[in-house]
Amino acid sequence: MIGAGFMGVAHSQGWRVAPRFFELPLQPEMSVLVGRDLERTRTSAECWGWSEAATDWREVIERPDIDVVDIVTPGDTHAEIAIAALDAGKHVLCEKPLANTVAEAEAMTDAAERAAARGVRSMVGFTYRRVPAATFARDLVAAGRIGEIRQVRAEYLQDWLSDAEAPLTWRLQKDRAGSGALGDIGAHAVDLTEFITGQSVSRVSGILETIVSERPLLGESSGLSGTATAERGAVTVDDLALFTGRLSSGALASFEATRFRTGRKNALRIEIAGSTGALSFDLERLNELEYYDATAPAEEQGFRRILVTEPGHPYVGNWWPAGHMLGYEHGFSHQAKDFVEAIAEGSAPTPSFADGLHVQRVLDAVERSSNADSAWTAVD
Amino acid sequence: MIGAGFMGVAHSQGWRVAPRFFELPLQPEMSVLVGRDLERTRTSAECWGWSEAATDWREVIERPDIDVVDIVTPGDTHAEIAIAALDAGKHVLCEKPLANTVAEAEAMTDAAERAAARGVRSMVGFTYRRVPAATFARDLVAAGRIGEIRQVRAEYLQDWLSDAEAPLTWRLQKDRAGSGALGDIGAHAVDLTEFITGQSVSRVSGILETIVSERPLLGESSGLSGTATAERGAVTVDDLALFTGRLSSGALASFEATRFRTGRKNALRIEIAGSTGALSFDLERLNELEYYDATAPAEEQGFRRILVTEPGHPYVGNWWPAGHMLGYEHGFSHQAKDFVEAIAEGSAPTPSFADGLHVQRVLDAVERSSNADSAWTAVD
Amino acid sequence: MIGAGFMGVAHSQGWRVAPRFFELPLQPEMSVLVGRDLERTRTSAECWGWSEAATDWREVIERPDIDVVDIVTPGDTHAEIAIAALDAGKHVLCEKPLANTVAEAEAMTDAAERAAARGVRSMVGFTYRRVPAATFARDLVAAGRIGEIRQVRAEYLQDWLSDAEAPLTWRLQKDRAGSGALGDIGAHAVDLTEFITGQSVSRVSGILETIVSERPLLGESSGLSGTATAERGAVTVDDLALFTGRLSSGALASFEATRFRTGRKNALRIEIAGSTGALSFDLERLNELEYYDATAPAEEQGFRRILVTEPGHPYVGNWWPAGHMLGYEHGFSHQAKDFVEAIAEGSAPTPSFADGLHVQRVLDAVERSSNADSAWTAVD
Amino acid sequence: MIGAGFMGVAHSQGWRVAPRFFELPLQPEMSVLVGRDLERTRTSAECWGWSEAATDWREVIERPDIDVVDIVTPGDTHAEIAIAALDAGKHVLCEKPLANTVAEAEAMTDAAERAAARGVRSMVGFTYRRVPAATFARDLVAAGRIGEIRQVRAEYLQDWLSDAEAPLTWRLQKDRAGSGALGDIGAHAVDLTEFITGQSVSRVSGILETIVSERPLLGESSGLSGTATAERGAVTVDDLALFTGRLSSGALASFEATRFRTGRKNALRIEIAGSTGALSFDLERLNELEYYDATAPAEEQGFRRILVTEPGHPYVGNWWPAGHMLGYEHGFSHQAKDFVEAIAEGSAPTPSFADGLHVQRVLDAVERSSNADSAWTAVD
Repeated sequence: MIGAGFMGVAHSQGWRVAPRFFELPLQPEMSVLVGRDLERTRTSAECWGWSEAATDWREVIERPDIDVVDIVTPGDTHAEIAIAALDAGKHVLCEKPLANTVAEAEAMTDAAERAAARGVRSMVGFTYRRVPAATFARDLVAAGRIGEIRQVRAEYLQDWLSDAEAPLTWRLQKDRAGSGALGDIGAHAVDLTEFITGQSVSRVSGILETIVSERPLLGESSGLSGTATAERGAVTVDDLALFTGRLSSGALASFEATRFRTGRKNALRIEIAGSTGALSFDLERLNELEYYDATAPAEEQGFRRILVTEPGHPYVGNWWPAGHMLGYEHGFSHQAKDFVEAIAEGSAPTPSFADGLHVQRVLDAVERSSNADSAWTAVD
Repeated sequence: MIGAGFMGVAHSQGWRVAPRFFELPLQPEMSVLVGRDLERTRTSAECWGWSEAATDWREVIERPDIDVVDIVTPGDTHAEIAIAALDAGKHVLCEKPLANTVAEAEAMTDAAERAAARGVRSMVGFTYRRVPAATFARDLVAAGRIGEIRQVRAEYLQDWLSDAEAPLTWRLQKDRAGSGALGDIGAHAVDLTEFITGQSVSRVSGILETIVSERPLLGESSGLSGTATAERGAVTVDDLALFTGRLSSGALASFEATRFRTGRKNALRIEIAGSTGALSFDLERLNELEYYDATAPAEEQGFRRILVTEPGHPYVGNWWPAGHMLGYEHGFSHQAKDFVEAIAEGSAPTPSFADGLHVQRVLDAVERSSNADSAWTAVD
Repeated sequence: MIGAGFMGVAHSQGWRVAPRFFELPLQPEMSVLVGRDLERTRTSAECWGWSEAATDWREVIERPDIDVVDIVTPGDTHAEIAIAALDAGKHVLCEKPLANTVAEAEAMTDAAERAAARGVRSMVGFTYRRVPAATFARDLVAAGRIGEIRQVRAEYLQDWLSDAEAPLTWRLQKDRAGSGALGDIGAHAVDLTEFITGQSVSRVSGILETIVSERPLLGESSGLSGTATAERGAVTVDDLALFTGRLSSGALASFEATRFRTGRKNALRIEIAGSTGALSFDLERLNELEYYDATAPAEEQGFRRILVTEPGHPYVGNWWPAGHMLGYEHGFSHQAKDFVEAIAEGSAPTPSFADGLHVQRVLDAVERSSNADSAWTAVD
Repeated sequence: MIGAGFMGVAHSQGWRVAPRFFELPLQPEMSVLVGRDLERTRTSAECWGWSEAATDWREVIERPDIDVVDIVTPGDTHAEIAIAALDAGKHVLCEKPLANTVAEAEAMTDAAERAAARGVRSMVGFTYRRVPAATFARDLVAAGRIGEIRQVRAEYLQDWLSDAEAPLTWRLQKDRAGSGALGDIGAHAVDLTEFITGQSVSRVSGILETIVSERPLLGESSGLSGTATAERGAVTVDDLALFTGRLSSGALASFEATRFRTGRKNALRIEIAGSTGALSFDLERLNELEYYDATAPAEEQGFRRILVTEPGHPYVGNWWPAGHMLGYEHGFSHQAKDFVEAIAEGSAPTPSFADGLHVQRVLDAVERSSNADSAWTAVD
């Protein structure tokens, strides 16, 4: 695994726990953790369960005892590492966003396709697809349980920038973060919409907005946090993205990604209205799915709160008895399981790099639309 | 109508509004309002829409132009007025509780039965039965949609006595109010349980509790409110009633009536678990009914929030289009409508005085059980 | 009152009930109901409590005994009636939308301003402002309880067109209805946003969408309903409107108006995120307001469900005791009360015709933006 | 660890994960798993991460390289193992219920006290105390945030026996399971009440009920499941327990434990009403706590939904960023962490065996009360 931040913890937990709850066809071995500082990486490796620590990812991906490379570094490094790893014949799991630019994502997708021809697998980490309620929502749509899709609302609401005095971290600087709410969380809303509906966004119209345009500069800091100083600098990414997309069936989906929805901590929500039913999901209540069956008698229709904790629900049977809740991290075990199974079976795991590229293209089109007075802009 | 307090307003609104939304076989005329003080009663009569004001109820119930007597006085006066009115051949609607004692309620029921033999109708005002969601719940149970009833939880939660310095009004004195939470709101929980399940409570075990036993005495006051003084007096009614009842089918129902559930303002709630489904209702969200269908596939089961505002729901079609909410007072129009229809048809309206008597007997049994170390006590 | 449809019932109920619960400085008398068919209007007049029935509105507005004209006819007739009534010196309450076109609304606003100079009052019927929870939300914003407004989400979700075989009524024809979801329900979302935030929408970008473009023609019918035939006709209004608006402070508000959100019956929802708090309201739970106080310690922050049924809440003290629910129709009593009070005081009631005109201009700008590839379009 | 059922998985996950997220003063080593069948135990040991497998627990607890014994066997074996382990000088974590009888629990508590004198620690596994929302609730109560406790409602609702044809497993037989819903889940409701309130139950009145008294016998089976046969046998434990308890402060708490509340899967709920506030928790939404502050202005009071996922909440800071959900199993890591810390510090971990004994005594008193016509029965 390359990268040693918060996402590294989540992926480590996924790799470590998956084989204990799922019967995997291959046993993952957690070999090498690659970070920037050897000492710190050693500590992390030990803590998270990796056998070795290293600082040179190029060396590691050449090692013959390494089969899988898991990339959890910041987005601007994904392309270089992933392409090198795929070319070295390693299966690659790459955290989202696939890359910071469409060009990089295209190069990665090319590499993934070349690799696939040699039986080398790749996958991008839109983990929320693997929350059981989300997977179950996809299954219900696929089974025709809500009929033809009429419209979609997808939003990812957070509020951690509400405080105008929160400091100007690298995540608020375009050259380092690529984009703001759009790429960081809007990407999840797009992917989840496409996953559950089975359709893709073809055209968009939207606006990106920076709500607080100047923030205190950080003083010297180590790590993610730091102390604000008296000086101020410009926020160069979006705080809020509002856009509408046209799905392949012609239906409209409206999107919102924001870090300013005071009181909403991690509300990735999607509601899908169909001709014979509807579905509603909120990541803040990730063990629940609301389902509306419009074919019931009018007097008996209503959104029903399904606790997605029954043995028959996706992934759930391998965990605890019915009624016992799962959390954020379980999606990473599901991801690890599915990726290992695809490698073992020789099948193509999803979401593929091409899926990740497509999401990047949607985000890029939103940015272009925003720059063009919200004109409808094709995704390509 | 005899009585001119808050309940009088609600009943007046019911009588006035019902004929405008429902096609009634007979047109109610709002003739005389009877109160204690002529001047004040005149003002109320005018405000609430009664043609005349009077102070002597005996005189009024003898008037040949009066057909219906609606009693909304305090409980200790119900028996005398209702019996006199029935004996005078007037149809009687009597607000709950039917009476303050079982003996009085028995006398009233006797009078009601004598009157019924002469075609004179009587009804007791458990209005919450006529909230559309409650009536619809009864219909679902009757149609077998939750199967055999396994257990019931019914509670009426308020918090207006949470403040230990709230003054000692007449409602907290046994000689005037009869009982506390038990009779005032517990009666509703019992009636609603019996109404929706179609069963009656035959035996009970329970405890009555006074949580704050002394409160400031009221100084001179006019009306319901008044100023607390430095002196204190004893609270002689229950603040909290907890009891369990055996239903006619053998199932257990557990009850709670309290004015100390901080944060709950008017939460009359009932949840009924059956062999093939369940129902859940809360008066704080009176336009909703939650229904659980346990015959659906396990993965698709969930409590569904039905908005009971469809034209096909009980009473609803005569009000607003689907999706428009009703409020507290609409039950009083439904009550007026049903009572007028029963009179016109010559059928027996429900809940009857016998039903009201039965509820009194349940409450009385709870009190006796509480005095007997919570021993199981027969209702009779 | 001119007009005898469903809105007429609601307004009649407002006029009839308001003086019984509020002490009004002037007593409204319900004189004449004007409809098209004399016989039918007579029946309605009697049922809803009007003394007379008439068919010629011009005659009625000239009558010296008429002080107030309440217009509840379809939108295309508002301008002519309202202007005539104002010019005749009658106070005018006009149901929303103020008119079907901006030009008509402008003429009406001119007339209203002329009339105001002579002490004649006018008001447009955005009743949802007067749901206590909405008024209370406005009060909290005005008191600075959520700080500076950062972003707004407002949506009005219905689903009564989800069935693709629902017939082509006049509401789906542009020449008669003006617009679809946009004008009918989107107007409420815009007005409520402006009311609660105290700001106005200055520019918009959006799209109008017809989801089901052909529907069965109606056969001969009387009244609102009718039987579908085998022939089909084109739906010429929008089923769904998605737009973003720029508020006067610079904040963005995103809007949705739809009749295709399966499972949502009457969900007028607004959520306002501020720098120190947030508010969330849903008309399907109209007695509740959710408030988030971001100045509390981080561990104690949360959306709190306020039951807006306390005596201290707007309008509530005149109805029932705390914890007793109000319904859809109560807003009409509040509207009647406020209008009568403004007339008596000689003050300008709100929302004014100018407010109604402004909403029309916002809707018009949305339509123009939709026709211009969602380009940002000034409201003017 | 002794025992290899479902609880063994949860405890293993706790031991394995805790040291990766919390800085522990001592590093737990997962040495030996003890089961009945060596082959099967070996497989489990490997899967769950234990170094060795064994079948003779007596041998294992004598091993000098073993410091801690974790007991997750059925309740009837707890006493013998725990006492032997404590006497052998091993720290003991024992899954709830502490024992099947009060006598056994007393002997265990004696052993624990003897051991404590020698610095040997013991703890009983009421894990739900360590759900962050529950711990936070305790903290709020302790900080006086709801004032004086007025009344408590605690319930543990499940529905897995709703199906009358579900087979007669050992859990429905008194000689093997001790009791039914009372001991299995009612114990949690009692412990959580005592933990959060800081008070203990001193007297009880209640009833135990078997709703479905005969069920199909199991045919030959391996493991937990099996096939129902045509024969039927008697259910000898309770399906439903309803009881009221007197807390040390004098307040009443009402309890329900049931496996027949159709639609409720794992609803351990507690609501505590205090003189200045209230708290409400539901294990089905374990990342949330509802808090009501009755000292706010009346118009602004409401239950607020706190997402207990902030860094400042108990245990939460060591997991994921704010807004990321935890699940069922995280409590087991918290338990492991707290137990290890207590051992390292030489302090007494809670809940102690004495706490577990007290819960057993409460359950025993409920059973005696049920047999004595629900008479109030002292806990001792």
